[in-house]
Amino acid sequence: MKNKIKVGIIGYGNLGKSVELGIRQNKDMQLAGIFTRRDPSTLKIITEGVQAYHIDQAKDMTDKIDVMVLCGGSMSDLPEQGPYFASLFNTVDGYDTHAKIPEYFNKVNKNALEAGKVCIISSGWDPGMFSINRLYADAILPEGKTYTFWGTGISQGHSDAIRRVKGVRDGKQYTIPVEGAIEAVKRGEMPELTAREKHKRVCYVVAEEGADKEQIKQDIITMPNYFADYDTEVYFVTAEELEKNHGGLPHGGLVIRYGKTGAHEENRHTIEYKLELDSNPDFTANVLLAFVRAAYRLSREGVSGAKTVVDIAPAYLSDQSAEELRKSFI
Amino acid sequence: MKNKIKVGIIGYGNLGKSVELGIRQNKDMQLAGIFTRRDPSTLKIITEGVQAYHIDQAKDMTDKIDVMVLCGGSMSDLPEQGPYFASLFNTVDGYDTHAKIPEYFNKVNKNALEAGKVCIISSGWDPGMFSINRLYADAILPEGKTYTFWGTGISQGHSDAIRRVKGVRDGKQYTIPVEGAIEAVKRGEMPELTAREKHKRVCYVVAEEGADKEQIKQDIITMPNYFADYDTEVYFVTAEELEKNHGGLPHGGLVIRYGKTGAHEENRHTIEYKLELDSNPDFTANVLLAFVRAAYRLSREGVSGAKTVVDIAPAYLSDQSAEELRKSFI
Repeated sequence: MKNKIKVGIIGYGNLGKSVELGIRQNKDMQLAGIFTRRDPSTLKIITEGVQAYHIDQAKDMTDKIDVMVLCGGSMSDLPEQGPYFASLFNTVDGYDTHAKIPEYFNKVNKNALEAGKVCIISSGWDPGMFSINRLYADAILPEGKTYTFWGTGISQGHSDAIRRVKGVRDGKQYTIPVEGAIEAVKRGEMPELTAREKHKRVCYVVAEEGADKEQIKQDIITMPNYFADYDTEVYFVTAEELEKNHGGLPHGGLVIRYGKTGAHEENRHTIEYKLELDSNPDFTANVLLAFVRAAYRLSREGVSGAKTVVDIAPAYLSDQSAEELRKSFI
Repeated sequence: MKNKIKVGIIGYGNLGKSVELGIRQNKDMQLAGIFTRRDPSTLKIITEGVQAYHIDQAKDMTDKIDVMVLCGGSMSDLPEQGPYFASLFNTVDGYDTHAKIPEYFNKVNKNALEAGKVCIISSGWDPGMFSINRLYADAILPEGKTYTFWGTGISQGHSDAIRRVKGVRDGKQYTIPVEGAIEAVKRGEMPELTAREKHKRVCYVVAEEGADKEQIKQDIITMPNYFADYDTEVYFVTAEELEKNHGGLPHGGLVIRYGKTGAHEENRHTIEYKLELDSNPDFTANVLLAFVRAAYRLSREGVSGAKTVVDIAPAYLSDQSAEELRKSFI
């Protein structure tokens, strides 16, 4: 039997836990260790026989791990951890601060090239599968326009923003695409859409006892960057209702390109890539793991440096041979 | 300015004509010649300044063409032309006899390796973009099931079959996916679907004068391989109606994967890739052209051999640099 790919996990939050579960679905992988900044003895690892380590111990385990999955946040964790671990391991991460991806790429690339490692950045679904689909659609229909819609799903950033409002005990925010906008795109109107025209925001809020609900509502819907540019609905619920009805992390979205062909642009085409996800972290984790396989295989071929998802041939994501793929998938 | 990619077209039917039009949308390409088995002087080429040649002249023009697009049929043209032109040119084709792809690959690969050419086979949308999406979805959701639906669209093969029926002057056949089956897939029932449960077939038929329409209908709906295993509807129309209402070549389809994740498979996910195409040949041509760019670039990197669409990193399909892609698409 082939050696399994030994996978390490940096960070044991929602995403790290989902990566742990996802490894079980991939018969050619095994979990080799989980690394945390917390006291490792406090971690409740699901996988039998696997140990938690302090993140500082990782550097001494380069011979025990084939690919490290970086599950920290893009705000403060990955800008440090990405370049650092690129000097030690093949890595896969889901760095998602779109505007800073070129800068992040360059830092990771430098260290990965020096260390001879393969580091796949900004994997997941957006960036990730949505990036891949934007690129394919653009290449196939050069005369056209691409739109990305997100939701219906929970936005962590916006939920956090709600919770920072005075008088709010807890809250969840759903990003919901505006159906009329999607319809207009499909009809071929190639509309220029504002933030407000593309998505609306629906908030479920648990108020502290005695808090001024009208004030909370005003504070939310006028919040710059997060809500002011959108039509926002605010509903007050009990803590129990929030837990029961809004306790999950569903998400999803749609990349759609409308394009024209023909001697007189008389032929219209739409390409849609749509995700409906019960669990954002589970799905993201599974995408990261498919790219773990790619990083492992590329590394064994002698490749090194940072890569994004569009630099990787789809075949590298599969555990099947090229012959099997030609027979079963083409 | 960069040199443009010099593209040749073998075969000037529906697909070849669409490739000619598609080249205009790709600013980094130019049409270098069209090759036909007919008398070249009879071809009405749209592009100014471009010449038609007899197909036998192609072998003397290897220095004038960077990539040859093979637009012949999979039944009898490509099995000969694919391996033949692989010895002379980088090629892209849409070979679509799924069961024979491994055999075709091997023949093309042998000649392409000997000649140092890159030959991308079985491009288009199915095989092609649908193959890519089946593979990605399978790799991301290992626990799940993938379904491919085709239509609503005109099937050339089934339209041809109708026309061979006694008493039929002309006819068109629409393949239509069964909505209920798609819904069942989305609901997560992971159904085992028969041919009849997945698609229905709707035929528009122009009968010859005095023909027995009831007999024509029976002959169609009981025809083995083509119609007997499906619910088939037959409508008789005039030649004018057929031309006016069914003169185009629309098509499309859907690849959908349903999968589960989580500690107890409690989280459900769907990935959908959907195409709605006014013109099947135009869209197919545009996919072939995106892979022309890939073949050209791989060839310049010194790569050789046969490739399928899953062997090509998405970035190779774009005319933008890796830096631009990281900035605009990731």
